[in-house]
Amino acid sequence: MAAKSNGPIGEHSGRVLAGPTNPMVTPLLTDLYQFTMAYAYWKAGKHNERAVFDLYFRKNPFGGEYTIFAGLEECIRFIANFKLSEDEIDFVRESLSPSCEDGFYDYLRGVDCSGVEVYAITEGSVVFPKVPLLRVEGPVAVVQLLETPFLNLINYASLVSTNAARHRFVAGESKMLLEFGLRRAQGPDGGIGASKYCYMGGFHATSNVAAGKLFGIPLRGTHSHAFVSSFMSPDEIIDKSLRSSDSQSTCEDFVSLAQTWLSKIQWSNSLNGTFGETNQSELAAFTSYALAFPDNFLALVDTYDVMRSGIPNYCAVALALNDLGYKAAGIRLDSGDLAYLSCEARKIFHTIEKEFGVPGFGKTNITASNDLNEETLDALNKQGHEVDSFGIGTYVVTCYAQAALGCVFKLVEINNQPRIKLSEDVTKVSIPCKKRSYRLYGKEGYPLVDIMTGENEPPPKVGERILCRHPFNESKRAYVVPQRVEELMKCFWSGSPGGIREDLPPLKDIRDRCITQLRKMRPDHMRRLNPTPYKVSVSAKLYEFIHFLWLNEAPVGELQ
Amino acid sequence: MAAKSNGPIGEHSGRVLAGPTNPMVTPLLTDLYQFTMAYAYWKAGKHNERAVFDLYFRKNPFGGEYTIFAGLEECIRFIANFKLSEDEIDFVRESLSPSCEDGFYDYLRGVDCSGVEVYAITEGSVVFPKVPLLRVEGPVAVVQLLETPFLNLINYASLVSTNAARHRFVAGESKMLLEFGLRRAQGPDGGIGASKYCYMGGFHATSNVAAGKLFGIPLRGTHSHAFVSSFMSPDEIIDKSLRSSDSQSTCEDFVSLAQTWLSKIQWSNSLNGTFGETNQSELAAFTSYALAFPDNFLALVDTYDVMRSGIPNYCAVALALNDLGYKAAGIRLDSGDLAYLSCEARKIFHTIEKEFGVPGFGKTNITASNDLNEETLDALNKQGHEVDSFGIGTYVVTCYAQAALGCVFKLVEINNQPRIKLSEDVTKVSIPCKKRSYRLYGKEGYPLVDIMTGENEPPPKVGERILCRHPFNESKRAYVVPQRVEELMKCFWSGSPGGIREDLPPLKDIRDRCITQLRKMRPDHMRRLNPTPYKVSVSAKLYEFIHFLWLNEAPVGELQ
Repeated sequence: MAAKSNGPIGEHSGRVLAGPTNPMVTPLLTDLYQFTMAYAYWKAGKHNERAVFDLYFRKNPFGGEYTIFAGLEECIRFIANFKLSEDEIDFVRESLSPSCEDGFYDYLRGVDCSGVEVYAITEGSVVFPKVPLLRVEGPVAVVQLLETPFLNLINYASLVSTNAARHRFVAGESKMLLEFGLRRAQGPDGGIGASKYCYMGGFHATSNVAAGKLFGIPLRGTHSHAFVSSFMSPDEIIDKSLRSSDSQSTCEDFVSLAQTWLSKIQWSNSLNGTFGETNQSELAAFTSYALAFPDNFLALVDTYDVMRSGIPNYCAVALALNDLGYKAAGIRLDSGDLAYLSCEARKIFHTIEKEFGVPGFGKTNITASNDLNEETLDALNKQGHEVDSFGIGTYVVTCYAQAALGCVFKLVEINNQPRIKLSEDVTKVSIPCKKRSYRLYGKEGYPLVDIMTGENEPPPKVGERILCRHPFNESKRAYVVPQRVEELMKCFWSGSPGGIREDLPPLKDIRDRCITQLRKMRPDHMRRLNPTPYKVSVSAKLYEFIHFLWLNEAPVGELQ
Repeated sequence: MAAKSNGPIGEHSGRVLAGPTNPMVTPLLTDLYQFTMAYAYWKAGKHNERAVFDLYFRKNPFGGEYTIFAGLEECIRFIANFKLSEDEIDFVRESLSPSCEDGFYDYLRGVDCSGVEVYAITEGSVVFPKVPLLRVEGPVAVVQLLETPFLNLINYASLVSTNAARHRFVAGESKMLLEFGLRRAQGPDGGIGASKYCYMGGFHATSNVAAGKLFGIPLRGTHSHAFVSSFMSPDEIIDKSLRSSDSQSTCEDFVSLAQTWLSKIQWSNSLNGTFGETNQSELAAFTSYALAFPDNFLALVDTYDVMRSGIPNYCAVALALNDLGYKAAGIRLDSGDLAYLSCEARKIFHTIEKEFGVPGFGKTNITASNDLNEETLDALNKQGHEVDSFGIGTYVVTCYAQAALGCVFKLVEINNQPRIKLSEDVTKVSIPCKKRSYRLYGKEGYPLVDIMTGENEPPPKVGERILCRHPFNESKRAYVVPQRVEELMKCFWSGSPGGIREDLPPLKDIRDRCITQLRKMRPDHMRRLNPTPYKVSVSAKLYEFIHFLWLNEAPVGELQ
């Protein structure tokens, strides 16, 4: 990625950045206390003090040992367009105390993000607890206003792309993953966000048309149970003709052709009487759907009974299409024992391939849906199945197994003074100072450890031994001789003219980065059961400073 | 609520309805299969067949026995403005097969919801499984397009208002509930939706400024840990003067006044040496915040140490404000043992009220936050606490205990033919027919049972015995003599001119309805542990018909 020089505010790498995807993301999409604090800073004359905040999370989600970082582009688009309208300023005025001075609203009127710098890890990267995803610097009052929208834009995005990556990992790389969650998502853009970030995390397509349009994600979809039950019988199909695939001939009665195939299947020797009467409204629906989409006939086969009705009806219509040169696209199973049903369906497809000499019929695509999640995918794998594609909805989009990621935004420096947030819970103590962070790679090419250093410390060097310390646990430390050193944060937003900014890559590239990074992780960090934690550390110098500051700030107790 | 006659499409009760809150809610916010089905219906000449769909859920969330219905207004605003733009039609064309005929896109161009009728339970009502929340009638192709957006708009809305109501129930009606979840919500309008529907479910205020502006929800917020740690010492406060509340005098050095109070507290006999040195950056932050908001001084007291620093610093500043005629607003605890800390803080407030003669100081408002949920609220109650207000974030907005509600949208009739969706899982069998539903009340005024009947059956009558049957379990039935009968669904959208439509009430009224209905439920349905299921039934006639249709549609198995 080429780093380009800055244009004026609102531009990024030479192009004007559009605002966030959701027009509801405005400077008011923040907590009231960001405005009360902004007023208090302003009143105290502190609003322009230069502050540095780190955005990070404390624990990987879903019981795993890795997280995918997502949401950065939306944050940059937000700050590139950050400006309060008069209407918004009026509303802030109404919401604060009447005693607040007018000068503050004049100040707000002039606020933009030209004084802000954002250093961040590249979107789509594999990331770990405590290491800053973003370092945001700027006037303290302005940067505070960004806290809530940044957290909102990153928390769910990172959570759902991690969830998608985990589902992909369990399903296996050869399987196709379809995101079907819009109807169960947490609101409209919960759905749109899920579609975007599931794709980023490795899904292949979505059912969500709006997300397809917004982000260019491939779309998938066939028909529902309602479509099947809206038909009564094949008699109601009026236009029964279908042109062959090569347009050379026309079958005048495709309905009869399908019915003929159905009886052939019913009387087939190799299937030896597996099938009796099938549901006629289902046959009508399938035939009708095939007449509408002869080149993309995919049927939902469980409205009445998969094995006794859905499968034979599908095969009859697919074989009729085959007569006209069309290749049917497959079936979808949405209930029942998916392992058993997919294996039984596969057997029948193979038998039909052989019996009727239809090459490739045995490989008919089988899509499975119905409340799938990591556990059910794992169970299907253990049991053995013949599913090619998984349609996953509720569990992936709502992150049902863990519905929130706990990213936080902590002050680490103000006016060049390092700051620390203490807590009785040591995992909640923040790591002070403006920092840099590096990923150190070992001999086998795997990442070994992430290390944070003070901003002005010399970077770790390839081939040179460096001490990596646990930030809070004295006894945990290790020497590392890195074979490769990667600096993690790059500048994605620098308000000052002439500054350097990284490009915002297209979604497809972010997705590729994510998939590539996941493949390069050491397998024991990735496994579902008892994964090995990836090590996150600080330099010896930063370690000493943290503990100096800690003792300095904490009051001394008195036992009574 | 007065029922008013219809205006033209897009109007509702005489006013033009705005579109959905989120501009991303467009006709493309749907699953691709709704469009593939629409094409298949159109191709088969079935697209204008009159279909009836029920929207309902199968199981109450959170292990409870009730649900709050929410999201209706957004659905009505959506259909009042339903129209595909040329740009959207082009995208549908790109997404479907190139073989689809042009006539379909001409058809789509003309589609609106003038032929659609929506009957619904009033928003904010207490509702139960299987009873339709909405009955949507209209041309089958159009109604299918509404399925996904309706489910999306209702599922999360109902889930989060139910979650809010449950939190309110555990906290108790005397407590103030504040929604603080924006930063952890599932995306931007996950946050905005949460704020709206938590308020509907009984919360009192939100921190989300955008939601305050959009919906008129009261806003709350003070300052964060970062504000506290951004200060170094009281020396850095430049403008130290504060005018008294009555504007009659000015204290030239409010910082010293607060410091004087701090030493008085430290040397107080009744507090007998409870307090030693406090953190000076915290004292500076509190003093500075009080100078900015003398009439609304609320302090976060746990940045360094609640009892040794936060509480004495707060009391010092609050007593200094009291000298100038201001009443401080209270403290917020965001970590530690909230039960213990709130009780200890209360003791100190009472001691100070007595020692320094400050009436009301003992009643200082205590707000608690930090990962609160139903369980922690319940635990706090059992332990005993002195908290007045709860700030609840992650757990309420993401519905962490159960991140999705499973509303479904099922075809129950087409062309006046009742339809049923079968399933091997009996709880997934749909209840066919265009139906009405009623809530029957008993002698004590509590709702006893909901009953569904065929559309043309006579309604249950007050004082007349009626048989209520479980829809699927033969042996479960009971006679009821209702003391009051309430028809549950009313017409909220009728596309045809001159139709009758219910008003869409303002959010405040919906919230009141919700709170009132919850109060009127029999307590055993509401309790957290082992609540009694509320009964949902069908009429004897509908029962017979369901089972007739079921036998008719299900294939007869063969044991081998």
